[in-house]
Order: sequence, then C-alpha cells, then structure tokens
Amino acid sequence: MTKTEHESNSPVCAIVGAGPGNGAAFARRFAAAGYRVALLARNLARLSELAATLPGSRAYACDVTDGASIRAAFEAIARDLGPVEVLVYNAGKMVWGDPLALAEADFEAAWRINAHGAFLTARAVLPAMLAAGRGTVLFVGATASRRGRPGTTAFAAAKAAQRSLAESLARAYGPQGIHVSLLIIDGVVDEPVNRPAFPGRPDEFFAKPDDIAGTAVFLARQPRSAWTFELDVRPFGEPW
Amino acid sequence: MTKTEHESNSPVCAIVGAGPGNGAAFARRFAAAGYRVALLARNLARLSELAATLPGSRAYACDVTDGASIRAAFEAIARDLGPVEVLVYNAGKMVWGDPLALAEADFEAAWRINAHGAFLTARAVLPAMLAAGRGTVLFVGATASRRGRPGTTAFAAAKAAQRSLAESLARAYGPQGIHVSLLIIDGVVDEPVNRPAFPGRPDEFFAKPDDIAGTAVFLARQPRSAWTFELDVRPFGEPW
Amino acid sequence: MTKTEHESNSPVCAIVGAGPGNGAAFARRFAAAGYRVALLARNLARLSELAATLPGSRAYACDVTDGASIRAAFEAIARDLGPVEVLVYNAGKMVWGDPLALAEADFEAAWRINAHGAFLTARAVLPAMLAAGRGTVLFVGATASRRGRPGTTAFAAAKAAQRSLAESLARAYGPQGIHVSLLIIDGVVDEPVNRPAFPGRPDEFFAKPDDIAGTAVFLARQPRSAWTFELDVRPFGEPW
Amino acid sequence: MTKTEHESNSPVCAIVGAGPGNGAAFARRFAAAGYRVALLARNLARLSELAATLPGSRAYACDVTDGASIRAAFEAIARDLGPVEVLVYNAGKMVWGDPLALAEADFEAAWRINAHGAFLTARAVLPAMLAAGRGTVLFVGATASRRGRPGTTAFAAAKAAQRSLAESLARAYGPQGIHVSLLIIDGVVDEPVNRPAFPGRPDEFFAKPDDIAGTAVFLARQPRSAWTFELDVRPFGEPW
Repeated sequence: MTKTEHESNSPVCAIVGAGPGNGAAFARRFAAAGYRVALLARNLARLSELAATLPGSRAYACDVTDGASIRAAFEAIARDLGPVEVLVYNAGKMVWGDPLALAEADFEAAWRINAHGAFLTARAVLPAMLAAGRGTVLFVGATASRRGRPGTTAFAAAKAAQRSLAESLARAYGPQGIHVSLLIIDGVVDEPVNRPAFPGRPDEFFAKPDDIAGTAVFLARQPRSAWTFELDVRPFGEPW
Repeated sequence: MTKTEHESNSPVCAIVGAGPGNGAAFARRFAAAGYRVALLARNLARLSELAATLPGSRAYACDVTDGASIRAAFEAIARDLGPVEVLVYNAGKMVWGDPLALAEADFEAAWRINAHGAFLTARAVLPAMLAAGRGTVLFVGATASRRGRPGTTAFAAAKAAQRSLAESLARAYGPQGIHVSLLIIDGVVDEPVNRPAFPGRPDEFFAKPDDIAGTAVFLARQPRSAWTFELDVRPFGEPW
Repeated sequence: MTKTEHESNSPVCAIVGAGPGNGAAFARRFAAAGYRVALLARNLARLSELAATLPGSRAYACDVTDGASIRAAFEAIARDLGPVEVLVYNAGKMVWGDPLALAEADFEAAWRINAHGAFLTARAVLPAMLAAGRGTVLFVGATASRRGRPGTTAFAAAKAAQRSLAESLARAYGPQGIHVSLLIIDGVVDEPVNRPAFPGRPDEFFAKPDDIAGTAVFLARQPRSAWTFELDVRPFGEPW
Repeated sequence: MTKTEHESNSPVCAIVGAGPGNGAAFARRFAAAGYRVALLARNLARLSELAATLPGSRAYACDVTDGASIRAAFEAIARDLGPVEVLVYNAGKMVWGDPLALAEADFEAAWRINAHGAFLTARAVLPAMLAAGRGTVLFVGATASRRGRPGTTAFAAAKAAQRSLAESLARAYGPQGIHVSLLIIDGVVDEPVNRPAFPGRPDEFFAKPDDIAGTAVFLARQPRSAWTFELDVRPFGEPW
C-alpha cells in the first residue's frame, strides 16, 4: 500500500466473506467498477491469492464471530485504504438439518455468523458513513431469509434475523444518507461446492456469481432519490 | 400434587414466561379450559403465588437462556404432571434502542430469550408430542416479528428469528400431528408495566391479556383438518 | 318467519355464497352458535333446501355481479330479520388456466365475483354496522390470496384484490368498532366437487368445511381488544 | 419510419402509459440505452411531442381499457418497429377515497387500468416474446401494491391484483426466457401533478422519475441467471 493509493479518490468497498464463489465475484465486480476492495475472511492465505489478482485490493483476516477481530480489521482498513463507502456482508454459514436433528450448537452458530456478525460489522462501518453522510451497506440474503423450512431451520432463523436487522438499519439511517439493502439470492449459486450437490442439473439451474455481483454493484450506485431496500435474484430456470 | 391428579385425564399446558400480564392470563385461561398448567419462569416465588390461585397448576423455575435448566424443568413436569400437550412460549425480552445506541450484549440477549430459548424449549417437548402423535406448540410473537424498526432493532431481529423457527417447526412436524402456531400481538398489552409508558391513552388502546389468551386456547383446540399457523391480534383502536 | 323471530335478540349472520361445502357449513355453525342466518346465492331453490334445515334461517337470491341484486337482497334481510351483525363473504369463482390459455372474459369474471362483489356487499352492510358501532365482515380467502401461480392467474389476481380490500376496510372501520377479517384457506376443501379432482388422497389431505366454519364463528366472537385481521387454516397433512 | 430503421438491430421497448413524469422518463432512459421506443397513451398529441424529442421513437394511441385498442396498437408497433423486446406497463389510475366514500365506478376503473389492462397488454406481447425465447415485461407498482389503506382502497386493490398477475406471469414464462418484473415505487414521484399536493416538502422527499427509470433499464438488462422479480425504490428521505 503506497501513499498514492491511500490518497486515491476511488472509493473503498469492503467484502466480508470474500470466499470463492459469490465473495470473489463481488470483489472482481466492485474492483472492475473502480472501487479499491478490502477482502475479509478468516482464511488470510486464500484471500491474499484473490487480492493479488485485483489491483488496489487488500486482504484482511476477520472472524465475524469475534467483535474484536471485526473492529481490528476495520481499523486496519480505515488506516490502509481510508473510509469504507460500501460494505458487502456476504459472510454466511449454511447449516442443514431438521429441528430435532440439528446439533444444538449449530442453531447458534448460524445466527452468530449470519445475524450477529452482520450487526457487529454494520456497527463498525456506520459511524464513519454517518459522519460522511453517505455509504452503502449491502446484506446478502437467501431464500431462507423469507421462509423457514424443516431442512433449513437454523439457517432460516438466522437469515430472518439478518433481514429484520437490515430493515431496521435501512429505516434508521436511510434519512441520513446511508443506503442499506438486502439482496436475496433465491436459488443455488454456481459455486464449486454446489455443483456436486446438484448433479445432472443444467447450467441454467444455477445463479452465476458474476451476475449476482452485477446487481450488487448496481445497488451501490443507485441514486438516493430511488433506493432499493430489498430485491431477489433468481436463475430463470428455477422452479419457484 | 397427589397421585390422583397425576393420573388425571386433563391435559397439561406448560406456559413458559408465566409472568404477570400475558403469562398469567394464559395460565388462567388454560386452567379454566380444563388444562393442568405448568408455570415456568425464573422467579419461582412469584410463580408460586400464581400457581396457588389455579387448581392443578404447579410452578417450575426455568431460565430459558440455559439449556440444562429447560431440560430439568420439563423432566420435572413430565414426572409430576405427565406429558405436555400444549406449550405456550411466552418468554420474551424487549430491548429498545437504535442500532448504534444498543449495548452490544443486548442484541444477543434479545435473541437468546426470544429465539434460542424457543428452539431449546420446543426441542424439550417435541419428542414426547411426536411419540403421542399430537400436541400444540404456540409461540407468542409481536409486531416486531414481521418488521424491523430502528427502536426495536434487537427485539425485531430476535422475533423474526422466532417466527422463522415457528414456520420451520410447523412444516416439519405438522404432518406428524403437531400444531405449531404463531400468535402475533400487534399492539400494546394491558400489563402493569405498559400503562405508565403510554399515559393518557384510552382503555381501548390496549390489548387485554385475557382476550389474547382466549385466542391462544382457541388455537390449542382447533381441529387438525384446519389448523392456523399464524394470526395477529390487535386492539380495535390501534392505528395500523 | 314470524314476528317473534324478527324481534328476537339473536344476531343476524348473512352468508354470501351459501352453496354446498363451505357455505353450508358456515350456515350450520353460525346457526348452532345462535345466529339467525340469511343465506344468499344465485340458486334460490338449493338455498331454500338448506334454509329449511336451519331454524331461523332464510334464503335470498343474490347475484354478486349485480349491485342492484345485492342491494335488494340486503334490504330484504334488514326488513325480514333486522340488521346484519356478521357478514361472511364466501362467494368465489375459481378460474384455472395459464395466462395465455385463459379466456379473456375469465380474468374479469374472477375479479367480478371475488373482489368487486366483496366491495359491493361490504358497502351494503357497513353503514348499518357503523351506525350500530359494531359488526363483523369476514372474507374467505385462499392460498391464491397471497401468491400468484401460472394455473391460478385469474383467481389469484382476484383474491389478491380481495385481500387488499379487506385490509383497507379493516383499517378504515376497525376504530369504529367493525371487525374486518380475512380467513385464508390454504388447502383443498372437502367439498363434493373437490374429491374427484384429487383421487387417492387420504382423508387428512382435505380441510373440513365444518372445521373451517368453527374458526369463522370464533372470529365473529373475538373481543375487540384483540381482533385478528388475518389467519390461515390448513389441513395438517398438507405439504406447505 | 424508414426501412432502414425497421431493419435496425436496436431492440424495441414499448412504454404503456407514457405520460409526463415517469412515463416520459422511462422513454428517455430506454432511448438513451439504445432502444427504439414505442410510446403508448390515450393522448396521441402529447405523445407525439415526446416522440419528436426521442430519435427512433414513435407514438401510438392506446386505451388500455379497450382490448381492441391494445391489440391494434401492438400490431402497429410490430409492423412499424418489429418485435417488442421490453414492455413497461406504466399505465395507472390513482383513485383516492375511503371505502364508503368512493364512487362505485371508481373501484372498477382502478382495476380496469391497473390490472385488467396489464393482463391484456401482457397477452399482446407475450406470444412473440415466447417465440423469440426472450423478452422483458416490467410492471410499475406502488406502495399500494403491498398494502391496503383506507384512502387508497380502490387503487390498492387494483395494484394488488396487478402484483399477483406479475407473479403468475413470472412463474409461468420465466423458464421460457421471459423476465417479468415488478418495480414498486414506494414514495411520491416528482411529477408536476404531485408537487402542489405536497407543499413545503424538501426536494429529497420526492423520487425522481429519471432515477426510477434507471432501475427499469437495469432490470431489462439483467442477465437471466440472476433475474429480479420484485424490488422497491424509495427516496432516501421517505419515512417508512
């Protein structure tokens, strides 16, 4: 990180949960759109490989279950890159299992990452955004944000909490110039981990990370006279 | 508790969060409807006073933030009264405050009581209900179950998680004969603690605990060919 | 109808769409609950047979696509039985077909009966209810009230309009003592016409009209400090 | 219209309800995005003025309450410009008034334009879109699409029907390559007609037509692996 870059006028976008798949796609699309990208995840080694491919980006270790880790990461970003203008909260933990089959700890783990981490992370970036009178906080939701089903009990409860949080934040800070938005992915993302779980499905069954990320960039750029709070994205071949 | 009572055919209703106001009203109405009522809350002294007024009822100390406490209480109920046929989960913690004004711990505390405790408590009663092929699990929700607002950020996120959990449970175990239902109170309950917070409001502004409890008893008795999952109750004078 | 009956204190319930199945069950349950029942449908002959089985009830020809017919029927009811205390709007027209396969007229016919007729009928009873400061208007909705699907395009659009109308009415007149409520049937009703359409389904697949009607009576009797606007009923074996 | 233009490869966007305000903004933004724009409204004189300012655009008289008029307009568009790739259904009729204060005909008029006209218009463009295996149908909704309130009874019932229709269409034809989307404007649009109705409001209270239209163009261009069905747009200063 050179002084020149720090003084750059290009805005900073922090991607929390910058793993392969959606996370990396958010990073690439925001970088392509002119943002300097801060990549955050637990696994710094993998993040650094991604950062190396994106000019102006930088990787930060961050464990969203740990408030101190979140605060440290965002202090480092502020120091290195300057104020965060866009936060994409893409950290998520999918936990499957019927209510009685779930490990007790998994109900909490799902909430800890999807909802509590979102709360702590938003609180880490909002004060500076409010001081600047501008900023975007984007949460990545899922079908489960809107409805609970047996096999997604823990994940859905966590995502519902996240959605409610997003709504509270949008109402609280929208009038102060902060755009809080919820991007609900209603479908299976075309990530390496998902293809084997859906063998035989045609390509069109999957939502492409790059296409999802394009919508995220759009949301971050919406003019404030017509902000979207919530939208869904869904592959066209998805039964619905 | 005599042997006679234990062998009684009258069903058992467990009220979790049997404090003054709604909790006590649920207890009275279920007792009046012929249920033997198990009262659960942290404060055993106050519970016992209520139990003394309701024939066939019994008080149990229970801290819903502690899984062991929940399991111990329901084991004692099973031993003392027999299987629980109706669970009313009325434990709730209201936490007020804008997202950035909240104490960090309060976001978690709201979830711990409203959502996590509901999960643990449902798991404590469901196996016996499933074995019997019948039972009712009733969650008490709030306006905040459906929408997040700045002042209710923590409470709403917790109630949204609870609502999603209720939906997952209803879908998972309905076909096995378990009626899971969500009773959303959209208004201010006429409890001692609320009157001073709304000075000058007419009587009709408040929802009466006894009337709310009447709807809970109705839900517990609905025939299974036409079960309600979710309903709202609202005082008629409430702007909406 | 004798003078004695007209002067009776028992309240009047008008069932619009009192055909076999749900309509007849509403009539029986409200009659059993002590209401004098006015039965309305196009087919007066069939209605009269039902009326003959229910003491205090009376049949009225009414075509809900015709405002004059609605007004005439309710004027006759007011004259014969006195003011209507409960209105159950059960008239419905199910129209199936994909958007491009529908006959153009069917899109309008579905709306005419499910939504426009509901509007006209509510307007026929509300003035007297408002003058009395009390009354219940109950709309019978369906799964389609909440969501549109290809095969139910016309029916769903009509039922969505009806649901919105119910909400506007509830907000407009609730504070004046009128309880407007929407009972959403999410499942297949056990009516003669439906059994052949679902061959091989177990008994528990169907919602029993009598059980649905029990919930309608409950809604009409809810105390006004805790009124339900919307609830769903669903057979326990229904996938959801 | 010259032969050259007809053979042009630039896609055709039809704006139904191309009045001043939103309609004109949709026209300008789609024209700027490279579409040849067909403008439809009842008032051909005003339309022609707008068309004169937009190269490649053309005006068509169309009364959406009249199926024959709709069909004639779209046949003319097909002949003049070729197949419609994007339909923006922006025709709307706002009808205000409490349920009992409404003129009876207004309940129907609101539905006729907002819902029935949408149905007829979609049917006029869908066959060619399905034959091509691509196309976008965009409905312009309002706050009232989601909720009924006393003063918007007729408008809300009509917009709820429109929303349900959009959902049915999206589910029916999405898998065949047709993107059906609902853009809900939750706020007051900055149109000449609205400013006087909200005197003293700051500029930021109003949603700018141009910003709304930008989101419409975005929706029309979303790649089909991640299509949005429904989104809201709202001015940042709007209480919510």
